[in-house]
Amino acid sequence: MVTKLYKGHRVIIGSLNLIFLRPVIVSISHMNKIISFDKVSGILVCEAGCILENLIAFLDNQGFVMPLDLGAKGSCQIGGNVSTNAGGLRLLRYGSLHGSVLGLEVVLANGTVLDMLGTLRKDNTGYDLKHLFIGSEGSLGIVTKVSILTPPKLSSVNVCFLACKDYTSCLNLLSEAKRKLGEILSAFEFLDHDAMDLVLKHLEGVRNPFPSSMHDFYVLIETTGSNESYDREKLDAFLLHSMENGLISDGVVAQDITQASSCWHIREGIPEALMKAGGVYKYDLSIPVEKMYDLVKEMRIRLDASAKVVAYGHLGDGNLHLNISTPQYDDNILSQIEPFVYEWTSKNKGSISAEHGLGLMKANKIHYTKSPEAVQLMVTIKKLLDPNGILNPYKVLPPSLFT
Amino acid sequence: MVTKLYKGHRVIIGSLNLIFLRPVIVSISHMNKIISFDKVSGILVCEAGCILENLIAFLDNQGFVMPLDLGAKGSCQIGGNVSTNAGGLRLLRYGSLHGSVLGLEVVLANGTVLDMLGTLRKDNTGYDLKHLFIGSEGSLGIVTKVSILTPPKLSSVNVCFLACKDYTSCLNLLSEAKRKLGEILSAFEFLDHDAMDLVLKHLEGVRNPFPSSMHDFYVLIETTGSNESYDREKLDAFLLHSMENGLISDGVVAQDITQASSCWHIREGIPEALMKAGGVYKYDLSIPVEKMYDLVKEMRIRLDASAKVVAYGHLGDGNLHLNISTPQYDDNILSQIEPFVYEWTSKNKGSISAEHGLGLMKANKIHYTKSPEAVQLMVTIKKLLDPNGILNPYKVLPPSLFT
Repeated sequence: MVTKLYKGHRVIIGSLNLIFLRPVIVSISHMNKIISFDKVSGILVCEAGCILENLIAFLDNQGFVMPLDLGAKGSCQIGGNVSTNAGGLRLLRYGSLHGSVLGLEVVLANGTVLDMLGTLRKDNTGYDLKHLFIGSEGSLGIVTKVSILTPPKLSSVNVCFLACKDYTSCLNLLSEAKRKLGEILSAFEFLDHDAMDLVLKHLEGVRNPFPSSMHDFYVLIETTGSNESYDREKLDAFLLHSMENGLISDGVVAQDITQASSCWHIREGIPEALMKAGGVYKYDLSIPVEKMYDLVKEMRIRLDASAKVVAYGHLGDGNLHLNISTPQYDDNILSQIEPFVYEWTSKNKGSISAEHGLGLMKANKIHYTKSPEAVQLMVTIKKLLDPNGILNPYKVLPPSLFT
Repeated sequence: MVTKLYKGHRVIIGSLNLIFLRPVIVSISHMNKIISFDKVSGILVCEAGCILENLIAFLDNQGFVMPLDLGAKGSCQIGGNVSTNAGGLRLLRYGSLHGSVLGLEVVLANGTVLDMLGTLRKDNTGYDLKHLFIGSEGSLGIVTKVSILTPPKLSSVNVCFLACKDYTSCLNLLSEAKRKLGEILSAFEFLDHDAMDLVLKHLEGVRNPFPSSMHDFYVLIETTGSNESYDREKLDAFLLHSMENGLISDGVVAQDITQASSCWHIREGIPEALMKAGGVYKYDLSIPVEKMYDLVKEMRIRLDASAKVVAYGHLGDGNLHLNISTPQYDDNILSQIEPFVYEWTSKNKGSISAEHGLGLMKANKIHYTKSPEAVQLMVTIKKLLDPNGILNPYKVLPPSLFT
């Protein structure tokens, strides 16, 4: 996590007493020590500059897993993950960081070190202040240490890649998977025809799991459990039942790690394929699942042949990654997309930023998701904790509310 | 949840302009409607006065479960559960309310209705304010509506009651259970010899599962999964392995719901047995598990024969319910217990209130668990949100900090 601080630099020119602000970049990459790990409780305490992938590797050796995983794991730091409330691929199974982070140490704008570094699953003494710093993008304080609950590593992982004839089948399949796979379900991802088409065209070494035909929708399901044969039997029974019910049109089950990686590569390769295809307008939305795909269809009608609308995401979490792919960036196309996409999401009680945060670009768009009263309280809290606005200014909240 | 508001009542007597404060009790028991339930996502939205047991029954009909369950479910309301961050019997499996509550509507002290009633699993737009109201015991606002993620009901439940020769065996058994039972583990409770002795003496209709001998420690394990035969085989293999390893000395597996209820009755009957035995000093502590039972042993040495020290709790969550049972209340005994129990817990980085909250009785004891800087920030936030101190005054935070 990089936090920008603004420090005053006073210059007197004639009668003018000017303060020039110059940004200071704070890096915590040298704060990268693991402080403690308790093998009974699974509680890890570490400094905030630890790289996520290093923590994953450390825990793997101990027989545990991090409750979050994401594409950027090789470079992102746990302090940044916490500050941005990172979602990622394991949220469906292990929930959000508000559930798994047990404690934080945070440095406030006035230099106070706020020690909330508890290592307890249960602690009802006073207000649980750490949540203010989870997801506030470094704008209320700088996270310096993290205590997090990690689940034990389970040995059996299965991956299957399925084709569905329509979006309703994907939804019904999700309901069935929650019930039939129950406690072993660990991922439920979806992509549409246009996403698959893009991956097959632009990514090298990707093979269509169903070479004889293209389908309108694809679902990737992963299970993680403690018993290989039980888990596989459970998955096979679920797939047979779903085939018979017509929820899936075709499907493959990965027989080894290489095949499982190939399935994941299709899903995880979409952002790279989009970049290779030309310009791309990216939206990270949460929308109640039953309405989610309506937005994609409406967007296709609006844009007609001028752009390709590509949809994929974490269906199990209600998180749509909507991408508009064009040969090059074009203001006319942008004006067709925005503010329509935000207004539509707001009208349907969605979030205009599911897991990526608001940052600089969307700070002014917070009102599409949050009520005026809630935004006003956020502004009041920001002024309370950072009265001089030195922590990541202009981010998260509309700068106009601070004048 | 009952919140006390203090309203000014102005009286002018001669030159004196006096304001008498009179308490107003706010009850939300008539706000008891279920607003919506989404069967695909499992998201329930309801008014805060809904009785927990009614929500459990409603969800049961839909094939889902509440992520929390507790002894008081027949009378407690979901708004109170959220305001006190209730823990209970399902925390080990489904985590805390900070993870499962997706949205809240809260009325602030100035009458503002704060709409944060989102129904999304992922929403990274601005600060996640709802967490301020989860566990703040009604002192920052009154929760009026709740949106909560509910997991699907799983059909297979197994319960076993085991005997262990020492506390270390209980801990090793917990590690083994997390690994071998993995995703189906749903409760890991423990009680000691004195707790079992009390239950057998004072509760009618309770039978010792191991009539031929008493043991020093007992563990209740519950599994919840989606496949009856797989789960039972998994449990049996785990028990056989634990017997062979010497982690358990004896054990019974419930063969039907009646036997499962009998096992739970022993564990859940301890508070009632304590009440029948005479006076009782109760402590609800979180302590890192490896040190937890040291406190019980030290307390027995301090109190000698003057009182019976009874220990039980949610071992899987690191939550000890420590009870000192005496024929009658006695200030000499109390002075032997306090402040020792708080100082010991503080020294060992525990929490003096794991799940019950601070309320009136322990508001002045917050410093045993929280740092001065954290308490100061809590006071600042309380003054910001409730400048006149009308919401549950004297609770949660030390009143002396408001003068």
